[in-house]
Amino acid sequence: MTEIPASHLPLLEQPNIGHLATLRPDGVIQLNDMWFLYDGENIRFTHTNARVKFRNLQLNPAMTLSVTDRDDDYRYLELRGRLIETIDDPTGAFYQELDRRYGAESPPPPKDAAHRVILVMGIDSVNAH
Amino acid sequence: MTEIPASHLPLLEQPNIGHLATLRPDGVIQLNDMWFLYDGENIRFTHTNARVKFRNLQLNPAMTLSVTDRDDDYRYLELRGRLIETIDDPTGAFYQELDRRYGAESPPPPKDAAHRVILVMGIDSVNAH
Repeated sequence: MTEIPASHLPLLEQPNIGHLATLRPDGVIQLNDMWFLYDGENIRFTHTNARVKFRNLQLNPAMTLSVTDRDDDYRYLELRGRLIETIDDPTGAFYQELDRRYGAESPPPPKDAAHRVILVMGIDSVNAH
Repeated sequence: MTEIPASHLPLLEQPNIGHLATLRPDGVIQLNDMWFLYDGENIRFTHTNARVKFRNLQLNPAMTLSVTDRDDDYRYLELRGRLIETIDDPTGAFYQELDRRYGAESPPPPKDAAHRVILVMGIDSVNAH
């Protein structure tokens, strides 16, 4: 388990938008803005199994996430790791949990719930400043 | 020349922090928070020729940049491209220009001016939402 510096834990605890990098088969790096949850050990994302990023990760599990503090541009956290688990979320419950974390009061389940999955990213290294 | 949608030009014009992805030789994606300038055609970064990211780009010129609107989390721009030119900046003048763009009033030259370069990223494709 890779430790997050206590100074930078708030960046993961606050509902900041994450920038998630994955690698396409053609070698182009894909970046997406993502909701995320830090569970104390890993990073969890809601996703579907019908999108490009999901296919990228089946071929190459490398994931790197960066987060900027919305109140201080110069506080930054970079987590490098890889996909360690994919968990089905067929009711979209985890999607709703993230939607609430990012400010929705009573979010409905997503329309694509049947395809929803939780991507679990293990953290191999941390850079913070 | 790849056009930026007019709706998303403000994300490049405002002094938002960019998230720049490059690829290390070991296949791990590196993300860095970066000042940038959009010159109407390419993206320009200040950098030094003595850092890991510079070496990454000599081996693999792939660069992907993402920008989130600081006032609206759900406005997002992703630019995929590659390093097309490296320009020496031995007085650090471009560093100072970016420092002013990001809020400094009378920035001094950087201490590492002798190693400063301008990385010019050509844009191959754009995703915006």
